[in-house]
Amino acid sequence: MEKQFIKPSTLPGFMELLPADQIIFNNIMDTIRNNYEKSGFVPMDTPIIEKTEILLAKGGQETDKQIYRFTKGSNDISLRFDLTVPFARYSAQHMSELTFPFRRYQIGKVFRGERNQKGRYREFYQCDIDIINNGELSIINDAEIPSIIYSIFTEIGLKDFKIRINNRKILNGFFNSLGISNNVEILRIIDKVDKIGMEAICKELLELGLNENAVNKIRDFIGIGGTNEEILKALENLNIDDEIFKIGVDELSKVVYYIGCFGVPDKNYTIDLKIARGLEYYTGTVYETMLDDYPNVGSICSGGRYADLAGYYTNQKLEGVGISIGLTRLFSQLRELGIIKENPSSSLTKVLVIPMGETMDYSVKTVKKLRECGIVSEVYLENTKFNKKLSYANKLGIPFTIIIGEEEVNSGILTLKDMNTGEQFKVSVEEAISKIKA
Amino acid sequence: MEKQFIKPSTLPGFMELLPADQIIFNNIMDTIRNNYEKSGFVPMDTPIIEKTEILLAKGGQETDKQIYRFTKGSNDISLRFDLTVPFARYSAQHMSELTFPFRRYQIGKVFRGERNQKGRYREFYQCDIDIINNGELSIINDAEIPSIIYSIFTEIGLKDFKIRINNRKILNGFFNSLGISNNVEILRIIDKVDKIGMEAICKELLELGLNENAVNKIRDFIGIGGTNEEILKALENLNIDDEIFKIGVDELSKVVYYIGCFGVPDKNYTIDLKIARGLEYYTGTVYETMLDDYPNVGSICSGGRYADLAGYYTNQKLEGVGISIGLTRLFSQLRELGIIKENPSSSLTKVLVIPMGETMDYSVKTVKKLRECGIVSEVYLENTKFNKKLSYANKLGIPFTIIIGEEEVNSGILTLKDMNTGEQFKVSVEEAISKIKA
Repeated sequence: MEKQFIKPSTLPGFMELLPADQIIFNNIMDTIRNNYEKSGFVPMDTPIIEKTEILLAKGGQETDKQIYRFTKGSNDISLRFDLTVPFARYSAQHMSELTFPFRRYQIGKVFRGERNQKGRYREFYQCDIDIINNGELSIINDAEIPSIIYSIFTEIGLKDFKIRINNRKILNGFFNSLGISNNVEILRIIDKVDKIGMEAICKELLELGLNENAVNKIRDFIGIGGTNEEILKALENLNIDDEIFKIGVDELSKVVYYIGCFGVPDKNYTIDLKIARGLEYYTGTVYETMLDDYPNVGSICSGGRYADLAGYYTNQKLEGVGISIGLTRLFSQLRELGIIKENPSSSLTKVLVIPMGETMDYSVKTVKKLRECGIVSEVYLENTKFNKKLSYANKLGIPFTIIIGEEEVNSGILTLKDMNTGEQFKVSVEEAISKIKA
Repeated sequence: MEKQFIKPSTLPGFMELLPADQIIFNNIMDTIRNNYEKSGFVPMDTPIIEKTEILLAKGGQETDKQIYRFTKGSNDISLRFDLTVPFARYSAQHMSELTFPFRRYQIGKVFRGERNQKGRYREFYQCDIDIINNGELSIINDAEIPSIIYSIFTEIGLKDFKIRINNRKILNGFFNSLGISNNVEILRIIDKVDKIGMEAICKELLELGLNENAVNKIRDFIGIGGTNEEILKALENLNIDDEIFKIGVDELSKVVYYIGCFGVPDKNYTIDLKIARGLEYYTGTVYETMLDDYPNVGSICSGGRYADLAGYYTNQKLEGVGISIGLTRLFSQLRELGIIKENPSSSLTKVLVIPMGETMDYSVKTVKKLRECGIVSEVYLENTKFNKKLSYANKLGIPFTIIIGEEEVNSGILTLKDMNTGEQFKVSVEEAISKIKA
């Protein structure tokens, strides 16, 4: 009877990369991590599985439908669908052991059983930073967060991106001044303006029951443009007599000022009164980040200020500000658009040591020296034809080979080959090391 | 009505660390990763959720009971319980796109719904390396793997550990020579000798149906001790006329020889004929790693050689060798034994910039410079008393503070404080940077 094989495959909506892409993916993740750490954020790692009652404490969300939920023994458990809820739980649970303000980052996989569609993943990495305080948190923190995002995207090689900033208090204060109360619904509608256009959202606002006058005022308001200074000036000139509105304008002007102090160039951040963010949870500053040349990609990094991180788990008010990069989707989009180029190499190895004849010990000892000098290297250990060994280096895109025959063992002079140019050099191990490092 | 809170807690068997420990944990993970990469292993990342039919292809294992398995829509899906099965699936699925020999590492969480007991985790990190070939794989690979493990444990700060090596072919060949066939059961029993002692395993072997003569011979055999050379000599002197046995001895002597070439000191590896490893899947070299002074900890790193990695998914024979570090358990044990010391710092920050008076812009610009020079740094952004700012640095174990008052802004000369000695220095930013780096 013929042996039956199980077809090797992954579930739809789960990203899996070949080595060339995985290397780039990890480089980006390292860039994110290094920048988070450089700014004094500590790493956090929480379980992927949590009690369902913890994860769904808020309830009534889209997440309820999407969550991976199951029973093990007598436990009702689920896979985390974001890193914010676990962070809230962690902060409440360990509050007495933490020092505030508390700056943490977390990079990890989250799970959402979304409808299967292009560009949507059911398992994806989020890379979050937050700063929280046990009580009030200075508004200047809201300026630091975008400066870190700026460093990351610049280091990744993106140049033409814009961090768009708004403040919920400005929007809410403005709605108050119009005598409108159903703010959350209005925010959700406004949030769609880039996708569906101004006419469509005005129509939705009318359908919501707003009168024509109010809708026109909202249209004019979110259409305010210009430099950051011009927009702030325009907001002042509206002379809106609402306390919340005034606080919002004051916060936003401080945020914009300090973002400059943190070194973000003017071209990479802008006030945008259209940014609303759908989530109820934000109470002040909100961020989105757009690629100038690819508006269809949508926001590649979003977040904001919140007044009560862990209200479902503790009566201590934890005020904070944070932002999240959805790395899996970002990578797949940048890769598809060609903004991230194909990796010509499927290996991290800088040099392949190729033994010829009976020189295996010497080759192994040579690779040991290379590794001790921090050079990523390997020996070709299989007993096969020379051409096959060379072709291994070529296929993987390894830039150098060191060929070790019996002559090389006797003389101590190795043959170093630059695989890109084809040039060969007769060198000592030490010379080879400096050449490879250079 | 009083607000009801959900008690913030994690599920039993799931590790979660405070920042001080998380920093150490991540340092160890980085050491593992760096050593894997330095030796030319490429990163791999596979989904945490896979089709159950893939993960349970083998079946009939302990894992069947422990697996986290559930239904989502019409899919029967499970959380991976190790990294070997996903690696096998990946290799079979992407075979035509990979270059062989293929060296990969994978570090990630795996899940086992084990009975809740001390030292056992239901979610834990595995850190695996494997080298596989599409066909035969040279035995020298079996010598390289322990050399990487040696580098890792040495760099972590462990000195007194021993990689114990054996070869299944030697055991199987020896059993053949005794006319015994039920090898897998015998291997499982022998594997327990360190835990339950020689007398107990002899008893179990007798109960299995072996006669006294055979049991005595097994006892003598696995008791063979001495230096690696002495053990190899003793094996030869047994004059066992079994082909498998002879191949095994030849392989083992090559492995031991090349481990030396790869630079592992004699004291850190030894042949141990008692090492059997329970898993059927191993066909040649097997490894375990023990701490000399803490035998009760058991093996902290195990693995071996296999002949057919992906036999459930493809008819291509993928031969390989690999090893795995169970990082979560290792960390928790080393920490508990005090081998890993308590981290005096709950922060990665090297310097805290403390603004005094109206110096926030200058302070922010200073921290920007520090970060550009690669110094992990933060500004204390909250408006509070000086002592509270200093106490933040003290609580987190931040080694330096830079105090910036109006005088400092005017003169450009900062006050750098060494928080350990209490010394203060009046320095320029550049001098501060070199002092902190030194």
